[in-house]
Amino acid sequence: MNTKITDRIASLREEMKKHQLDAYIIPSSDSHLSEYPAACWKAREWISGFNGSAGTVVVTANKAGLWTDSRYFLQATAQLEGTGIELYKLMLPDTPSIPEFLIAEIGKNAKAGLNGETYSVAEFNTLQQALGRKNISIETNLDLISLIWKDRPTIPGNKIFELPVEITGMSVSDKLDLLNNKLREAGADCTILGALDDVAWTFNIRGNDVTYNPVAVSYGFISEEECVLFIKPEKLTDEIALHLKKEGVILADYSCIENYLTRLPAKTRILIDPHKTNMALYHAIPDHCRIIEQISPATILKSIKNKTEIEGFQHAVIKDGVALTRFYIWLEKQMEAGMKVTELDASRKLSCLRAEQPLYIMDSFETIAGYAGHGAIVHYAPTEESAATICPEGLLLIDSGGQYLDGTTDITRTIPMGEPTEQMKKDFTRVLKGMISLSKCKFPAGTRGCQLDILARKALWDAGINYLHGTGHGIGHCLNVHEGPQSIRMEENPVKLQPGMVLSNEPAMYRTGEYGIRTENMILIREDSETEYGKFYSFETLTLCYIDTRLIVLPMLSAREQAWLNKYHQQVYEKLSPYLNEEEQEWLKEKTKEI
Amino acid sequence: MNTKITDRIASLREEMKKHQLDAYIIPSSDSHLSEYPAACWKAREWISGFNGSAGTVVVTANKAGLWTDSRYFLQATAQLEGTGIELYKLMLPDTPSIPEFLIAEIGKNAKAGLNGETYSVAEFNTLQQALGRKNISIETNLDLISLIWKDRPTIPGNKIFELPVEITGMSVSDKLDLLNNKLREAGADCTILGALDDVAWTFNIRGNDVTYNPVAVSYGFISEEECVLFIKPEKLTDEIALHLKKEGVILADYSCIENYLTRLPAKTRILIDPHKTNMALYHAIPDHCRIIEQISPATILKSIKNKTEIEGFQHAVIKDGVALTRFYIWLEKQMEAGMKVTELDASRKLSCLRAEQPLYIMDSFETIAGYAGHGAIVHYAPTEESAATICPEGLLLIDSGGQYLDGTTDITRTIPMGEPTEQMKKDFTRVLKGMISLSKCKFPAGTRGCQLDILARKALWDAGINYLHGTGHGIGHCLNVHEGPQSIRMEENPVKLQPGMVLSNEPAMYRTGEYGIRTENMILIREDSETEYGKFYSFETLTLCYIDTRLIVLPMLSAREQAWLNKYHQQVYEKLSPYLNEEEQEWLKEKTKEI
Repeated sequence: MNTKITDRIASLREEMKKHQLDAYIIPSSDSHLSEYPAACWKAREWISGFNGSAGTVVVTANKAGLWTDSRYFLQATAQLEGTGIELYKLMLPDTPSIPEFLIAEIGKNAKAGLNGETYSVAEFNTLQQALGRKNISIETNLDLISLIWKDRPTIPGNKIFELPVEITGMSVSDKLDLLNNKLREAGADCTILGALDDVAWTFNIRGNDVTYNPVAVSYGFISEEECVLFIKPEKLTDEIALHLKKEGVILADYSCIENYLTRLPAKTRILIDPHKTNMALYHAIPDHCRIIEQISPATILKSIKNKTEIEGFQHAVIKDGVALTRFYIWLEKQMEAGMKVTELDASRKLSCLRAEQPLYIMDSFETIAGYAGHGAIVHYAPTEESAATICPEGLLLIDSGGQYLDGTTDITRTIPMGEPTEQMKKDFTRVLKGMISLSKCKFPAGTRGCQLDILARKALWDAGINYLHGTGHGIGHCLNVHEGPQSIRMEENPVKLQPGMVLSNEPAMYRTGEYGIRTENMILIREDSETEYGKFYSFETLTLCYIDTRLIVLPMLSAREQAWLNKYHQQVYEKLSPYLNEEEQEWLKEKTKEI
Repeated sequence: MNTKITDRIASLREEMKKHQLDAYIIPSSDSHLSEYPAACWKAREWISGFNGSAGTVVVTANKAGLWTDSRYFLQATAQLEGTGIELYKLMLPDTPSIPEFLIAEIGKNAKAGLNGETYSVAEFNTLQQALGRKNISIETNLDLISLIWKDRPTIPGNKIFELPVEITGMSVSDKLDLLNNKLREAGADCTILGALDDVAWTFNIRGNDVTYNPVAVSYGFISEEECVLFIKPEKLTDEIALHLKKEGVILADYSCIENYLTRLPAKTRILIDPHKTNMALYHAIPDHCRIIEQISPATILKSIKNKTEIEGFQHAVIKDGVALTRFYIWLEKQMEAGMKVTELDASRKLSCLRAEQPLYIMDSFETIAGYAGHGAIVHYAPTEESAATICPEGLLLIDSGGQYLDGTTDITRTIPMGEPTEQMKKDFTRVLKGMISLSKCKFPAGTRGCQLDILARKALWDAGINYLHGTGHGIGHCLNVHEGPQSIRMEENPVKLQPGMVLSNEPAMYRTGEYGIRTENMILIREDSETEYGKFYSFETLTLCYIDTRLIVLPMLSAREQAWLNKYHQQVYEKLSPYLNEEEQEWLKEKTKEI
């Protein structure tokens, strides 16, 4: 029995009794609804011992359950052993949803509780709708975990740093003006910035509070009258504080935001993004205010990169391309020399090579180095235990990225470690055709991502193959590698694609137990032309790294696709070679030679 | 001054005063939210004199306005002259919406009225939301037009006819079982059928009450306990009444539906389709019932054609193809003989040739015969006044269709009347490439129409061209030529494409004042294959009619596209020639010869 966990759950049940709660819900989020929460917000991991990135724990007087998705079924089964917590496998037909579970377990007219600081308005509304039908009420201002987690870490106090206007392309005061214009257009007087990357973008600050995302724990409040950055004072240097004040920013302690909101004057029209605002802030807004729920204007403005940011990306991809070229040369040499290289060795070497590049901060996500069958596990990242040794056969898929002060990168390449099979080559060529088709396309203003998605999949669909993840996600500028609001995927997303947006272009295919193939470039939306039928946009490929032509079945590519690839390779060589030594140049010349 | 109309509006204003209304809204719909309403429901035309298919009139104490879309700007301007009714052009940036107009004209706390029988629940909700903000209330049970329209036609009493199970492929009692199953799955006890084609499909009846749509004015009510057809008794023959009763149908007078609904027992869970149920019926449902709003199960079941219906379509397209072949031969001969042929002559001749075919009932919509510049007017239909004479030059676009007992057709072809220009040929080839690309595609189960739409547009987008209408609409079986819920268009439609659905495939391009090009086939969704990645579907082209190869720029077609066209033409010839005489065969042989 895992007494550490069972004791914690027993303590929680005592608190639940004191507070007359029939159930308590512990989600994975932080107060900013981040993809990666800081340690102090890992309440779900603390209560259950399960440390996957996604999962929700629900505790009642007699039962405890963890809901997580298929990526974590094996890991959760192992980590929950002896805890008394049952695993509920999401998306399987027989698994009850959390509301269904609660209705069955605690029944009508019962009371559930949660910490509203870690629940978004949108998610809470969904939960409340489902439970409200059975008259189950939800108490949202009870942080029971803090009462029992004695050595809970504090909210990070790491120092922040500023990105100069030479890198951001726009001063804070100009951004504040822009935001206030957008608020006026939306009929709002003010807004809360809840998402850490929205705050970081607005105030031109970056931090070290969260793995992979260079953000700092903080909130923002924007109005014509005052713009406030809510942040722990110890995170600021005097210099940054002074500069922010000069830009018109008022500084307040991180903990003051709720109190600040309660004092909003009557009839204030406040815009909140229901997916990026937690329930505690929502409840702090007085009833005499009018709430306008829509996507945050900061999220939209941030997604449309300015000229300076685009130039930054263009520098970052060169550095990234140089690091990747060196990495693939190193890997080839290691293999030729018969050295043992594991997935984890490869992942670490690549990080080191990126770190040699100017303005590197950190990796932009955990490197996926999937050799052979591991390549078919979409979210695989090697650990000491799992890391396979790379042999001179089969395929190696590496999906990685860097955070540089002047841009964020995300790139996937698949290379053959030995003589590839015909099936591998056909599969690779289908994926490549999709990647090229999306890269080359031209589309009218107003187009949404799901309209273009098929271009990346068509060659695969023709062969009865599909991949179940998205084709493209937005990418931040020295910010989160997964950034909204735009996307290219099968699912509807009402956001229109606009010039200046940066996205990934990553079609893929997976043969379970055998290999995974993914080829990913970053693409930038550019204005293309204007005709009597309106404005048209197209993509500019940003990423600079060779695509392994040994995996191509040439007759499967049309003349135009071949031309695209040759032109791309020419560009890769021209842009990277000035930064490579002679031997590296020669190697890359060979890899990028015309097909 | 148009005193007929001004008198009518004056009478309406008197009634508004009596009923203490500040505004009255008159939409175009009938009680079934049909595309084409019967004469008794043409209230908007009666009050305004404007007889376009779409438009809403709003009358206040001092103002009267008609809101319509760009198709009707010219016609509405002419028809409204002297009526005192102002034209509000929809979709133009400066045009106020109806709620904006009302807020400005009648102000806060005022009262508007409308006849809830001709307003859908969904549209009413949108209106109410917009007006509710300003506390403008809406009275929905006032049919003021009936009080002043003295010679208003009565609800049609035309006899209906039955479609035998040999044509429908499924008996009424089997359909009722299927519907009740679907209701159970949705957690509902019963449903109302409000749309005329849903009723016609469910009860295997057809009628003559509405132009182009072989439907009969009626409602349906479905539950496990009783299934009721609400219809005027004079529409039934004894034989049909007897047969319906045998199938388990209860017959009630058309006018009884509201009363019937008011007597639903407590806790009844009733499913209504908010887009296909009018507000009068909605209000008739007692408060003690629970309303489940979703798309009608009849709409979904109807869209998935069974084996017999599919065979019917396959017969109908042969008859249609024969009529079209004869029509194009006739047209060619007329032109060669130097005879004068107007767009209207062509349209009438085509109807006559269709009428010669077995099981023909009527045309499925008003033939669009657009010569030269008229072809660029998307919804153009020639009238005595507008009909252009077809000359031996330029392009002729003909979009037409037939209602046969065994299927409904919809087809567009564009042909050159003289030597086409290079631009015409390039444009035609781009449209053709789109049509072929969609025809050939294969897609996984779960795909929605908007994901496929780009296939029809890509060749056009590449050239900076677009068309602003949808690519494909659903098509009924001896029912409405525009049938939901499926579609292929740029806009999101959450309906998944399923085997058995029939759609149009009609990419197009328009050069204002010069010509329009549209090539349209009907396509049927078929199961294609099942792989480890799931089920895949593909399209079978149903339409059988030659595509004019004189308009093709051959090098613009890929080898595969050429192969598709040659195979299609071979099929057209093989399937049609047995029904053609020798001369016609020879002509078609030439038109369908390999490229």
